[in-house]
Amino acid sequence: MSKIRIAINGYGNLGRGVEAAVTAANDLDLVAIFTRRDPESVQTASPVPVVLLDDLENWVGEIDVLVLCGGSATDLGTQGPQAASLFNTVDSFDNHAKIPEYFAQMDHLARTSGHLSLISTGWDPGLFSLQRVIGESVLPDGATYTFWGRGVSQGHSDAVRRVPGVADAVQYTLPMDAAVEAALSGSGEQMSAPQMHTRECFVVLEEGADADEVRDAIVNMPNYFADYSTSVTFITAEELARNHSGMPHGGRVIRSGRTGTNAGHSESESDKQIYDFELALGSNPGFTGSVLTACARAVARLAAKGQTGAISILDVPASALSPRSRDDLLTHMV
Amino acid sequence: MSKIRIAINGYGNLGRGVEAAVTAANDLDLVAIFTRRDPESVQTASPVPVVLLDDLENWVGEIDVLVLCGGSATDLGTQGPQAASLFNTVDSFDNHAKIPEYFAQMDHLARTSGHLSLISTGWDPGLFSLQRVIGESVLPDGATYTFWGRGVSQGHSDAVRRVPGVADAVQYTLPMDAAVEAALSGSGEQMSAPQMHTRECFVVLEEGADADEVRDAIVNMPNYFADYSTSVTFITAEELARNHSGMPHGGRVIRSGRTGTNAGHSESESDKQIYDFELALGSNPGFTGSVLTACARAVARLAAKGQTGAISILDVPASALSPRSRDDLLTHMV
Repeated sequence: MSKIRIAINGYGNLGRGVEAAVTAANDLDLVAIFTRRDPESVQTASPVPVVLLDDLENWVGEIDVLVLCGGSATDLGTQGPQAASLFNTVDSFDNHAKIPEYFAQMDHLARTSGHLSLISTGWDPGLFSLQRVIGESVLPDGATYTFWGRGVSQGHSDAVRRVPGVADAVQYTLPMDAAVEAALSGSGEQMSAPQMHTRECFVVLEEGADADEVRDAIVNMPNYFADYSTSVTFITAEELARNHSGMPHGGRVIRSGRTGTNAGHSESESDKQIYDFELALGSNPGFTGSVLTACARAVARLAAKGQTGAISILDVPASALSPRSRDDLLTHMV
Repeated sequence: MSKIRIAINGYGNLGRGVEAAVTAANDLDLVAIFTRRDPESVQTASPVPVVLLDDLENWVGEIDVLVLCGGSATDLGTQGPQAASLFNTVDSFDNHAKIPEYFAQMDHLARTSGHLSLISTGWDPGLFSLQRVIGESVLPDGATYTFWGRGVSQGHSDAVRRVPGVADAVQYTLPMDAAVEAALSGSGEQMSAPQMHTRECFVVLEEGADADEVRDAIVNMPNYFADYSTSVTFITAEELARNHSGMPHGGRVIRSGRTGTNAGHSESESDKQIYDFELALGSNPGFTGSVLTACARAVARLAAKGQTGAISILDVPASALSPRSRDDLLTHMV
């Protein structure tokens, strides 16, 4: 079987993650990386043509799936629809409130042009969406909890960096142990994000800045920190570079519930059931890129069967993500 | 939309679990329970017709999905093929070595008769199969570990009960902490089942039996215990009834691996990734029955789209398991 031809649009951290995953896969072929920058200025890890994004149309017929590695805030809203008219696509659109609208737009364009677009994949949205749906489906009587962290939140790190007196900063989101315990207890208790998470800020002060003022400005920042238990630790630029330059992340989806019968046994606890999924990621973009790559394989296969329009990972059978054949899966993985 | 009509074949612990899950679901209707016993002798939890299994053919046209709740060892090998010719089916066939052969047989019969048969679902095989495939697909460079327990193994409990001098017994399988740590470490170390699990036996002696002889017979039993670290604790029949009558189980699928790039960061640990799924089940048949029920919903939907033959849970998109609409899933669950 010929290899699936993959291209990448956008060569930041996520694009590099996809590049690594695609070049490591025997059934995938990386055919081009598209960029808005001067292609000459882009140093790729693998020997692959780097092409100006404006040339996208000239690659019709050369690419089975285009993986969109731009950000949700500004890039994907325009790049997604533009690409869906020309290619099968995969993206990590993660603005939860706008997902239905983005889906409808991509669905229309992909369907009209005869392509398939898998939107909003990665780990959340993505694998976590999948676990939330499966957990609820197999335990309808229960409650679902999504925890994030320990990991770096780029948005919150940026917010801290904008505080006057801050030279640089990194913010970690952490699940609270008590909230995890409550989720696992099966009590069904509802908890808000601030009841489930704490925030840790590591801050490098500008010379002459007042530490107490900076701390107050951070912990009282509306929307970002005011509702949370937030700690601020001042460190040197060297410490920040040495200990906080990675991009770890992760989180946990817990579905705790009950099934209706304990099959004749009378112990009151005997039908409590816990479904628990956790990711502990050394590199957020590395993992997300690897998920997007598996999804690109699935898109190529489903598109080859004639499927068009927009889908999410909820519409993808697990067998489509795997390079193994159906027989191989049945023999070794079921 | 009219409800999906479900029937159950076999009214043991698993059948009761399916009954509870089906009757709790708004979109499902339990239309009959089939049994080999005298129907008059079967006391069901819900008001549903209990029908002799011999009458199965008379129900063609009345049932959308028949959920097969017999055991793999003796029942499903004959009941599965018999049912696949008449109805769409779901089963929990769990004899791993024979799954490909069973699949081929069910695929032929279901395809020929125009039905859809989802085989080998539950939690292992079932949800664990799904997690093994997704974990490997998103982390191709890594190792997969499946742990079972803490939970009751019926097969091993039966084996202990057959030892001369044993009046009754329950056997628990437990993951070893050191093995879980090794799996999470990302070392990629290969471990056998006895290197990953210990076995705990709670045994009631027959009057006059020699405890040391019984213990020796158990811990040295080939295939079952000889390769394992096994503990034997002697208790009274009352203690066994009070503390060991439940059917808890569970386990853990860990995929630990690495992604190829840490996106420019140099920390050697920054691209280590852990995918970790755990079930802690108060009632094994209650949970398995609930999984079979969600799968029955999926089978009805996929069959309504014209799909025939045999499938596994690897072929089922998560959206098909959920009672929610696609729009609802997109808005609330992605």
